[in-house]
Amino acid sequence: MTLLRSWVESANSADTPFPLNNLPYGVFSTDSETMPRCGVAIGDQIFDLFKAESDGLVDLGAAVFDVPYWNEVMDLGAESWTALRARLIELLAEGAEALPDYLVAQADVTMQMPFKVAEFTDFYAGKHHAMNVGTMFRGPENALPPNWLHIPIGYNGRASTVVVSGTDIVRPNGQTKAPDAEMPSFGPCKRLDIELEMGAIIGGANAMGDPVTVQQADDMIFGYVLLNDWSARDIQAWEYQPLGPFQAKAFATSISPWIVTKEALEPFRTRTPEREKELLPHLVEPGPMLYDIDLEVTMAPKGKAATVIARTNYDRMYYSAAQQLAHHATSGCAMNVGDLIGSGTISGPEKSERGSLLELTWGGKEPMTLETGETRTFIEDGDTLTLAGAAKGEGYQIGFGTCVGTILPAKTFPQ
Amino acid sequence: MTLLRSWVESANSADTPFPLNNLPYGVFSTDSETMPRCGVAIGDQIFDLFKAESDGLVDLGAAVFDVPYWNEVMDLGAESWTALRARLIELLAEGAEALPDYLVAQADVTMQMPFKVAEFTDFYAGKHHAMNVGTMFRGPENALPPNWLHIPIGYNGRASTVVVSGTDIVRPNGQTKAPDAEMPSFGPCKRLDIELEMGAIIGGANAMGDPVTVQQADDMIFGYVLLNDWSARDIQAWEYQPLGPFQAKAFATSISPWIVTKEALEPFRTRTPEREKELLPHLVEPGPMLYDIDLEVTMAPKGKAATVIARTNYDRMYYSAAQQLAHHATSGCAMNVGDLIGSGTISGPEKSERGSLLELTWGGKEPMTLETGETRTFIEDGDTLTLAGAAKGEGYQIGFGTCVGTILPAKTFPQ
Repeated sequence: MTLLRSWVESANSADTPFPLNNLPYGVFSTDSETMPRCGVAIGDQIFDLFKAESDGLVDLGAAVFDVPYWNEVMDLGAESWTALRARLIELLAEGAEALPDYLVAQADVTMQMPFKVAEFTDFYAGKHHAMNVGTMFRGPENALPPNWLHIPIGYNGRASTVVVSGTDIVRPNGQTKAPDAEMPSFGPCKRLDIELEMGAIIGGANAMGDPVTVQQADDMIFGYVLLNDWSARDIQAWEYQPLGPFQAKAFATSISPWIVTKEALEPFRTRTPEREKELLPHLVEPGPMLYDIDLEVTMAPKGKAATVIARTNYDRMYYSAAQQLAHHATSGCAMNVGDLIGSGTISGPEKSERGSLLELTWGGKEPMTLETGETRTFIEDGDTLTLAGAAKGEGYQIGFGTCVGTILPAKTFPQ
Repeated sequence: MTLLRSWVESANSADTPFPLNNLPYGVFSTDSETMPRCGVAIGDQIFDLFKAESDGLVDLGAAVFDVPYWNEVMDLGAESWTALRARLIELLAEGAEALPDYLVAQADVTMQMPFKVAEFTDFYAGKHHAMNVGTMFRGPENALPPNWLHIPIGYNGRASTVVVSGTDIVRPNGQTKAPDAEMPSFGPCKRLDIELEMGAIIGGANAMGDPVTVQQADDMIFGYVLLNDWSARDIQAWEYQPLGPFQAKAFATSISPWIVTKEALEPFRTRTPEREKELLPHLVEPGPMLYDIDLEVTMAPKGKAATVIARTNYDRMYYSAAQQLAHHATSGCAMNVGDLIGSGTISGPEKSERGSLLELTWGGKEPMTLETGETRTFIEDGDTLTLAGAAKGEGYQIGFGTCVGTILPAKTFPQ
């Protein structure tokens, strides 16, 4: 696969995240058109699908772009996903009639949540992350829980606080307890962290009681986004026994605004790493279901330049989203269109590849020095954290754009 | 408060769960009218609110009964909840014009889910249950986790598999590992259990970033149902470390079909038990926010009579739903109309008051003998489990009806 050329000139570059090969799906509004609309990114422009459908340029058999979310497209099923992509390539390819009236400059828009999140599940499926965290908390001998190599460990998160990139994040309050304190105390989180993740968006459904195979699970995935699972480590430490993280994760999860489709990522499929213990048959990947996607995290103190604090790749994960989804449905749990599955923190074997500050600063014991000269253990008010990602082809890339969040000071409690 | 009399004669009895004092809200369909409609239970009848609104008998300022769920009523806010109840009492009271054309016999209907579940959170807020389970797993000295007396421990559950009473439950498959086995295995759950709980239905919302006080939380609760948090104990034991229960709970949660409103329960408010450790101020109850509700569990092998296996009361809980909800929002987690909060298993101090088979049979070590002569440790295929509950007043009761589920054999995996 090489660069596919478009009549949108800015899309014909090795550097654009959004060439014709990509065509990621989002929802946008502008100052003059405040009603959010679905669109597809092409170069530095957005092709307006509300307008295209209204004018009959795009027709999926039912109106799906009269709403400001992609769930209705997902609901049509995989054949329609393929048909839509084919039609968009036809409309936007070099040689097709230029349709400048349907373009909106990305510089002029505000991106919105691209889909309605039905439910959100987060996993813990990166082995380097699990080893790092486990080593810190339980020592290297007991780092991995006994189940870890046999099932992708996951927990249900909170869908109501999944927000689009650019949304400011209020530092959460919560209950914590210092190891030497007799009583817990309440106040702003002091160990606020990120988790670098990919999010898989489920575009299909299974009936309650009917599990799915790993292949069926892969077929149900509509696309991927970058995902930052903001985490309050001090709140988490106090609350998570015995039933898992709760308020430490519930306050916010950010996603990038563009859904990169599975079809766009097809050339970048790769196998999960070699198994250290054989998986039971229901979780074995029938083919490569992970993706080779370069990932990067930057941190910028308020008003200052950003420093790259981590670089890694999605291919570091031990379990693919398809395996996670298959496991999610083993009990007969019904999955629905719009469900969001977080990969778990993506860290690589090198220190520079760690996808959380918890790991990067080893529990706050090894502060980082930013390029601005400031040091950080965890996130301070005003800091902006940005995830970025792209799959790199020959002369083109499939970019995800960025997933950005700036931390605002905690509010007085209660309001 | 004594019995309020209605022109619906069957409502004027000390034994009916649904006197005029109650007026619980549900959604029903009939063989001839398959479109589900909202209705209110009165004696052995249902007053049809779709028809009543269509004919102008009930008017909340906007059409809310043209949909088969109660979320739109909740969305109108507490003043409308009060106005609706007042109007229904006016319409159904003794002395008002009889409106037999608006009644449907409960015997002739199929009850449906009364509301769309936005998200489901389950708690672990009964101290007797936590002590029993903790004693079994960690010994009596370490039974309660250190955080337990300071925050209501909860975890996010799965909304997609909350089903109405009467829905059959397929025994889940899952991965388990025997303590002496080298590798895990996969197959039908062998330790299938119930959890006797109350569910609180959230009728209000808070914005992301804005926590709520315990009083605000109580004001946000629309009503209560019985809730059975079906649990696969063997799957749970293998998966729950370190991030909590997942597939062990995801396959099904049953609720009773009638939402008993907070207003109907008002005479039965009671305080949570005395604190063993002082709570931090943000979790202190400003008034009685628990309820005196008698609860009962029965078990019936296929085709055989039911045996009462547990009797207890909702007042055994250490935390109220209002405290749970306030804790849920401490981090700024946005709560929404239609959120469902499970109380956690309700057990009392006596052995006969234990709300799960895990406790009743002490981890399967002490089988129960049913009145049919059969013994049980955990649930067998074909067994029917029924929760029932009622607040008992002088000469009347506020009944919840029942929450029933029958277990079907596990399916072959994968389908």
